[in-house]
Amino acid sequence: MTIDFETVDGIIEKNFEQTVAELRRLVAQPSVSAQNLGITECANLVAEMLSERGYATQIMLTDGHPVVYGEAQGTNNDRTMLLYLHYDVQPPEPLDLWLSPPWELTERKGALYARGVSDDKGHIITRLAALDALTEALGELPCRVKFVIEGEEEIGSPSIRPFIVENRELLAADACIWEFGGVNMDGNPTVSLGLRGIAFIHLWVESANRDIHSGLGGSVFPNAAWRLIWALNSLKDSHDNILIPGFYDDVVPASEQDLALLEKLPDLSDDWLKTYGLSHFIKGMIGSVELRRAAVFDPSCNIAGLTSGYQGDGGKTIIPKNATAKMDFRLVPNQTPEDILQKLRAHLDEQGFADVKFKMTGGYPPARVDPDNDYVKMVAQSAEEVFGLPALIEPIVGGSGPMAWFVEQFPDMPIVTAGAGYPGGKVHAPNEHIKIKNLKRAIRHTARIIGRFATDSA
Amino acid sequence: MTIDFETVDGIIEKNFEQTVAELRRLVAQPSVSAQNLGITECANLVAEMLSERGYATQIMLTDGHPVVYGEAQGTNNDRTMLLYLHYDVQPPEPLDLWLSPPWELTERKGALYARGVSDDKGHIITRLAALDALTEALGELPCRVKFVIEGEEEIGSPSIRPFIVENRELLAADACIWEFGGVNMDGNPTVSLGLRGIAFIHLWVESANRDIHSGLGGSVFPNAAWRLIWALNSLKDSHDNILIPGFYDDVVPASEQDLALLEKLPDLSDDWLKTYGLSHFIKGMIGSVELRRAAVFDPSCNIAGLTSGYQGDGGKTIIPKNATAKMDFRLVPNQTPEDILQKLRAHLDEQGFADVKFKMTGGYPPARVDPDNDYVKMVAQSAEEVFGLPALIEPIVGGSGPMAWFVEQFPDMPIVTAGAGYPGGKVHAPNEHIKIKNLKRAIRHTARIIGRFATDSA
Repeated sequence: MTIDFETVDGIIEKNFEQTVAELRRLVAQPSVSAQNLGITECANLVAEMLSERGYATQIMLTDGHPVVYGEAQGTNNDRTMLLYLHYDVQPPEPLDLWLSPPWELTERKGALYARGVSDDKGHIITRLAALDALTEALGELPCRVKFVIEGEEEIGSPSIRPFIVENRELLAADACIWEFGGVNMDGNPTVSLGLRGIAFIHLWVESANRDIHSGLGGSVFPNAAWRLIWALNSLKDSHDNILIPGFYDDVVPASEQDLALLEKLPDLSDDWLKTYGLSHFIKGMIGSVELRRAAVFDPSCNIAGLTSGYQGDGGKTIIPKNATAKMDFRLVPNQTPEDILQKLRAHLDEQGFADVKFKMTGGYPPARVDPDNDYVKMVAQSAEEVFGLPALIEPIVGGSGPMAWFVEQFPDMPIVTAGAGYPGGKVHAPNEHIKIKNLKRAIRHTARIIGRFATDSA
Repeated sequence: MTIDFETVDGIIEKNFEQTVAELRRLVAQPSVSAQNLGITECANLVAEMLSERGYATQIMLTDGHPVVYGEAQGTNNDRTMLLYLHYDVQPPEPLDLWLSPPWELTERKGALYARGVSDDKGHIITRLAALDALTEALGELPCRVKFVIEGEEEIGSPSIRPFIVENRELLAADACIWEFGGVNMDGNPTVSLGLRGIAFIHLWVESANRDIHSGLGGSVFPNAAWRLIWALNSLKDSHDNILIPGFYDDVVPASEQDLALLEKLPDLSDDWLKTYGLSHFIKGMIGSVELRRAAVFDPSCNIAGLTSGYQGDGGKTIIPKNATAKMDFRLVPNQTPEDILQKLRAHLDEQGFADVKFKMTGGYPPARVDPDNDYVKMVAQSAEEVFGLPALIEPIVGGSGPMAWFVEQFPDMPIVTAGAGYPGGKVHAPNEHIKIKNLKRAIRHTARIIGRFATDSA
């Protein structure tokens, strides 16, 4: 079996109007997991899109939202490609900032706008359009394909680990394409090979059963806000060193190869300073490689929110009865959420903060993929061929996702990113969009990945 | 001139229905300074109540809300009594917790309910009813009386200091009755002789021009919430010691006489633990006198509110662009807001927190009154006579108010509290009320204070 990708590209082009119509249909179905809005309807729609192509399709229930599973056989069923995607999206709010309705695919200046058009419905359509083109060119799929399309990615994928464990045999595959991907700010396609882990925690302290007038008890009663301040201060010093004993124990530093890959990536430091209005980076860090390294190979202890007492205009003289923090720890290989949170608890107790409670509200371990894998090289070469610029390899990215749960069950299955996104695409924000040019390229790239994976002698 | 207070009491009793009617009329006029609601109307109403009695009345404009000034001559115009009061009230919200409408005087179980019925409209009426009874008994007032009734007490009295400075001669008096007062939880009348000072501050730090995804920059970008934590932590250690250099320099400790007065006050420590659900007091403090002493003679550094980043349900992975704290410093003699805030600025700069900004949103210095004054003794004896239980003297109270601005201009004028309040009166809360019994007693007490002040040979 050899595949003429010029023919495949022609079919992709011929079908493109139909592809956009299918994307329009998919984004028109709201599916906000955080609000439990349209989830069942969207799972049904995605299942219909798979089954109308003849894929063996199941809507598989979990403790949370259902997973849509679809499987199709091909010419070479010794090879199985797993496609991980998600049909849920972020809330569209604030609605007044959208220039066109979030659930209505709208074309402006060569781009397609809608909630989920990039994250992740555009990628569901990308995979389908690529497989359609291969099927049309070859008469059938070149290999076995398995779709796992979940409905909880935007709320931390709480059900995906048990789902993978329970369906280990069903999901087994030789390679995987992850749910996102695209080009960087210079237009170079980027292949990302792993994700940091994360532990989300909600931390709180209560000092009284009600807010108390500060004139009465300001110099005699405990104050929850102060307890929170002191407890948090014990976690990280003002030079951004995390003080939890053992926190860094399992950190695997970036290798020579990792640093070499980071050196090829563009210098974003000036762009970061300008875009975010920063005066400096923490720890006095400077230089592209150092910043790139720290951003993905250093773990973090982040405060995402603080709440206590009176927050309105003017003042109110109270001792707040409670205080809370939303935090996320970004984890790097080989840290795990469970271990880090055990160390956090032990540290707080040791420091006299047994009254400071927390619960983990979600999380995953970090995941890495070996950059030396032939599959990774083929994906990068195919990207350069399609996008016209050299592909860059990110050894790991700073964000987080449930990739580790797949790696846990299938440690030998390489996972790559490939997609239609770009840095300006306003993912998770109003006016989310993808460029039409990138959507076409992502379909052609996906077709090449699956076609070559099916036929390469490797 | 001798005054038969039994006759005066009879007149107070005879007029009481009319007194309650006048209180009903006054609370029916909303006057929420924080919301600028009904202020002008209420100032006009109070002025009308003074002028219809023949007092020389002026509505005096300030940079904020007007002050109602009223003056009346009496038999002995060598003596002048100043009555400080305020016609503004706290917001009535949350409205759904009121058992009767906040602007409608309602009698239930021997008590009168309405917003402001205790703080402070009930005390305006108390002073008027006492003066009416004296006038009716004597044919005229026994001495000169000056009313200063301001409209910004509930928002920190920002205009009262310049008002007093500009009208120093107009306001000059030999003694003063402050705006509040009443009995303690055991029913003992309490005479309070001073107030702690306060400096309200709004403190903030900004680290970026927008919230940033924590997956991107969690280990490289500055985080405003962390900056706030570290800066606040530098102000007070976890043993509640305030760390600002020089903070305690001007503190005058409680004297032997102060401690002797505190010893006579009831032990509230168990009640505090139970009422507020506390497990302990700070610094391991125990014992009534020690707690009473710390509550009023120790300065405080209080956090009333913290705000940063995401505060909703679930999590959001952001690095917050800014973080704020609402704080109040309670000050004791001889601390001043200006000096303390200069020391705060110097400390933050010295500790590397020049990026942490603050502004003072209000404040007053502390105020003390000499407990050995004959006027104070007369007020206490009169209280015991009316309330039937020994009067207790609080050398200073933990709360704050603009008393210091009067002391600043009139250092020899003794100021006492006397009123109709009690600890269960829900001042500043829904269902604010006074007991009818206490209202009558407060009127009788006020009449005795003014009558004896006018006629005592001292």
